Amino acid sequence: MLDSYSIHTDLALEDKERFESDNVEISGVSVEEVYHKEKEIQITTVKILTENGAKVMRKPVGTYITMEAPNMAVPDEEYQTGIAEEVAEYLKEVLKLDKEDYTALVVGLGNRDVTPDALGPHVVEELRVTRHIIREYGKYAMDEKEAHMVSAIAPGVMAQTGMETSEIVKGIVEEIKPDFVIAIDALAARNTKRLNRTIQIADTGINPGSGVGNHREGITKETLGIPVIAIGIPTVVDAATIVRDTMENLLATIETSDKYEAINQLIAPHLYGMFVTPKDIDETIERLGSMIAEALNILFTKDIYC
Amino acid sequence: MLDSYSIHTDLALEDKERFESDNVEISGVSVEEVYHKEKEIQITTVKILTENGAKVMRKPVGTYITMEAPNMAVPDEEYQTGIAEEVAEYLKEVLKLDKEDYTALVVGLGNRDVTPDALGPHVVEELRVTRHIIREYGKYAMDEKEAHMVSAIAPGVMAQTGMETSEIVKGIVEEIKPDFVIAIDALAARNTKRLNRTIQIADTGINPGSGVGNHREGITKETLGIPVIAIGIPTVVDAATIVRDTMENLLATIETSDKYEAINQLIAPHLYGMFVTPKDIDETIERLGSMIAEALNILFTKDIYC
Amino acid sequence: MLDSYSIHTDLALEDKERFESDNVEISGVSVEEVYHKEKEIQITTVKILTENGAKVMRKPVGTYITMEAPNMAVPDEEYQTGIAEEVAEYLKEVLKLDKEDYTALVVGLGNRDVTPDALGPHVVEELRVTRHIIREYGKYAMDEKEAHMVSAIAPGVMAQTGMETSEIVKGIVEEIKPDFVIAIDALAARNTKRLNRTIQIADTGINPGSGVGNHREGITKETLGIPVIAIGIPTVVDAATIVRDTMENLLATIETSDKYEAINQLIAPHLYGMFVTPKDIDETIERLGSMIAEALNILFTKDIYC
Amino acid sequence: MLDSYSIHTDLALEDKERFESDNVEISGVSVEEVYHKEKEIQITTVKILTENGAKVMRKPVGTYITMEAPNMAVPDEEYQTGIAEEVAEYLKEVLKLDKEDYTALVVGLGNRDVTPDALGPHVVEELRVTRHIIREYGKYAMDEKEAHMVSAIAPGVMAQTGMETSEIVKGIVEEIKPDFVIAIDALAARNTKRLNRTIQIADTGINPGSGVGNHREGITKETLGIPVIAIGIPTVVDAATIVRDTMENLLATIETSDKYEAINQLIAPHLYGMFVTPKDIDETIERLGSMIAEALNILFTKDIYC
Repeated sequence: MLDSYSIHTDLALEDKERFESDNVEISGVSVEEVYHKEKEIQITTVKILTENGAKVMRKPVGTYITMEAPNMAVPDEEYQTGIAEEVAEYLKEVLKLDKEDYTALVVGLGNRDVTPDALGPHVVEELRVTRHIIREYGKYAMDEKEAHMVSAIAPGVMAQTGMETSEIVKGIVEEIKPDFVIAIDALAARNTKRLNRTIQIADTGINPGSGVGNHREGITKETLGIPVIAIGIPTVVDAATIVRDTMENLLATIETSDKYEAINQLIAPHLYGMFVTPKDIDETIERLGSMIAEALNILFTKDIYC
Repeated sequence: MLDSYSIHTDLALEDKERFESDNVEISGVSVEEVYHKEKEIQITTVKILTENGAKVMRKPVGTYITMEAPNMAVPDEEYQTGIAEEVAEYLKEVLKLDKEDYTALVVGLGNRDVTPDALGPHVVEELRVTRHIIREYGKYAMDEKEAHMVSAIAPGVMAQTGMETSEIVKGIVEEIKPDFVIAIDALAARNTKRLNRTIQIADTGINPGSGVGNHREGITKETLGIPVIAIGIPTVVDAATIVRDTMENLLATIETSDKYEAINQLIAPHLYGMFVTPKDIDETIERLGSMIAEALNILFTKDIYC
Repeated sequence: MLDSYSIHTDLALEDKERFESDNVEISGVSVEEVYHKEKEIQITTVKILTENGAKVMRKPVGTYITMEAPNMAVPDEEYQTGIAEEVAEYLKEVLKLDKEDYTALVVGLGNRDVTPDALGPHVVEELRVTRHIIREYGKYAMDEKEAHMVSAIAPGVMAQTGMETSEIVKGIVEEIKPDFVIAIDALAARNTKRLNRTIQIADTGINPGSGVGNHREGITKETLGIPVIAIGIPTVVDAATIVRDTMENLLATIETSDKYEAINQLIAPHLYGMFVTPKDIDETIERLGSMIAEALNILFTKDIYC
Repeated sequence: MLDSYSIHTDLALEDKERFESDNVEISGVSVEEVYHKEKEIQITTVKILTENGAKVMRKPVGTYITMEAPNMAVPDEEYQTGIAEEVAEYLKEVLKLDKEDYTALVVGLGNRDVTPDALGPHVVEELRVTRHIIREYGKYAMDEKEAHMVSAIAPGVMAQTGMETSEIVKGIVEEIKPDFVIAIDALAARNTKRLNRTIQIADTGINPGSGVGNHREGITKETLGIPVIAIGIPTVVDAATIVRDTMENLLATIETSDKYEAINQLIAPHLYGMFVTPKDIDETIERLGSMIAEALNILFTKDIYC
């Protein structure tokens, strides 16, 4: 069979889909679907209940809530607020908060200089942090009477810091002792249709090998000693994945139909508006720009070339 | 046959390669290859000489110089300067400058906010413009005694300006009357191996349908009345293209070998480090970041959710 | 007398204030004040009616509407929309539009890489341009049934382009033939209390010597042949100005009171939260960052320093 | 006397200068000056030796090395490398490293979104971090055979994180146990001539009240338990400071000379090319840009205003 174990997705929803064609129920995995008609959000809750389920799904035991909203990629502030409220509700449920006053640490993972990996840093930029205000003036200083202590950091990636992100977060957690961590990360999906249209909330934290930037060490309840909720949005598909997937579909249909027609049909709708580009395009583009500028600067300086 | 006419590349070199497997010589097209050993640059000059050649190659009559330098993507300032010198030499040749003092207008095409399309704006940022200095103080004000008058603009794309780029450039050309235009643009290639490693210099200017951002109207000698030299570097491959190409290769080998093995071999080396992402990822990522920040801001404000 | 003619402000309102202490009415200048209570906006309309008025005010004959809104600097989306509506109303009045369908060209002046000069480029970024859509699909393609054709450009400054901004704008105007130009620019004020809290709308266009970036040639009805409305917000005060102004006040009070006390009182409220920094701080800070990084890179590489 | 205790400078050199006019030697403070002719660098070493010296100088006991290089603000890569080498030498001396292999943590203080405060984040961006590579592959993986383990973080400021920077650094230090910390910060000077032309290296770490961003808690050997070396470059002068200083000079000369002449002479050379702007100009400019864009969007949409 096709080397499908190497196809990676960060969405539990997509791991589950691998088995759907076979009509197989996976032991140790439960799936529940809800459609929120008014907001046009499809919510799928995948629970991995046993170690067997975890092995088959290649994800740790835990709860994975996926919210698919086709209009999420459209700029519409009101709709965006509607989804934000929904996300807030699910987070509240997953966090099972019982303390009156809590301290949260939000960690924005990823590299702010690589566009599709910059989701976490962008979230931290717009977050309303309050811990320093409440510590200084008390919680009545906040507009809302009962705000919590919110702190946040976008620590950068290992190539920028020389440190595992888990080391940095662990150090900070030990120092400021939050009640829980919310970690935001850009994800890799398998299906281009899900890019920028899907939010996954997982109570399993950040696990090795996940994310656009590929975390090497986990940021989890095991490593930190406090609950870690991960919020992710898929922003890329590995180029290998889309080729492989399309080919699998091709091979399935190839006997019965004209093969070139089949290829064209498989490609067209699916890949419209997508491009393939190297992971380091952001820094490369600046360097190449410098190089051409240098060429022109040389060209236009007569005494060098004449 | 496979719908290959719809596969687009901005590199004349790659148009020519389509016919190589067939060992066909194309009438009206000449090809010349030089290898610059010391600098490890492969230089291919494709000349489209006749209208027939233009039709087969789907590019206008003219000269297309392609410089392939595998190390171009590696950050190495000295090597970069070496290539810059080479580019300057070829530009000088293509421009066939005979005026003692000339005025150049460099146009940086593309959208500075979409990373793989931002090559042109980056070049303009680092260009040494001199026209205003020479007009004010004379050319002896320059460090180099005989510098030319260089001007530059990065006009933005139609979705930002509401104007065809060609309209903007035409207006400026009529006002400042340069001797020629050099237009810089990010290109789409067909082969991922060429991304960020190839420079194309063409004396045909910018033609409709070319570039990452897909120009709708040309910027050419015909439209401006002065020579237009285009410098381009491929920064993306259409996602559809890589799927289609790999499948074509697959279908060619499928009879003789194990098909899954074939797929794995076709994919692996080629796509390593590449990702697929939507064309509007840069602005989308900021909007999605806002949305999640909003969700967390809602969550952490007790009087809204309690 | 103190060399006050060299004190520059781009606000007609502040030119007028120079004469207030003297209780002088300036011949050829009319002033009208309105307070918009609900929105807390003070609107002052200065009309320079004669060449004598222009000479005294050091600004061309024309109408200058200044809207002062102390809360403008506070982030509050609703309040911001309120001011935006007010600005739109005044623009409509100043433009005296009588054509059913018009074409507008918005020009965002200034250098996007120098923060206090970047107002114009930011406006262009968020503007809804429509000319290309209406030309392609007709005006019924717009959500609003009767939208106008809007085009925009942020041409950069002369040090980036080698061209006078007026040359670029003139070329584009001749090509696309808009009915009028709206030019946005960051201004220099004399009073720090006005920074980021004041909008000036003038029907005189952009004049030589004005703006943070100091335009050398005008962009006016005279140079373009169509009306040019300038919208400006003061973002800086020349450092020399604040020193000089405070000293003038000091010298006025020095005879009657304790001089050190006087100095302290003059300085305190006025300058709180302000800093003095060189005009080129944005690019300098990057270069200095590189230099220190280089020092550390040298330090940490043992075989160079051991 | 003038309320001079409230005039703040982060440069020990400038604290010392306050006493020079009086020809006073300060007990507990030693000063040594060296001029590096070839590189045109003036190096002043101020040592605060006693608590009395610390009180007079308003800075902790320790060594402050100031390197003044007038050409530092000029873009010249070779000269920059020359200064970088000099800085590396002094750092080596101050660090008194005796361990063969050490681990360094570089902390880039300041807010990357406020230009004059962004020095620290820029340094971290260009630093060659190695800790993760050496931990994974051993130190022989580095090009230089004996490189040290370098890690780095730009934690952001309290308004972004809700945490004291000292809390974050302390947590990370306890987790990764570096041998020392090098903290980079943008400073406030008293003399505009020093902006972007002066580097201060201090073995006293970062102290409360210092820096453009005003640290509230120290990052020092006392708080972290390991040596903390601070590297700073002054990028701003408080607006109040320049007014006050100029006025002091004015009052000193006012009896003997024409006072208006005196003012003009005091101001001119000193403040050329400087501007005064609010501390939050970077975010304000974006918001004001949005507001004007909104006004124009309203204006151009006929069915709202007609």
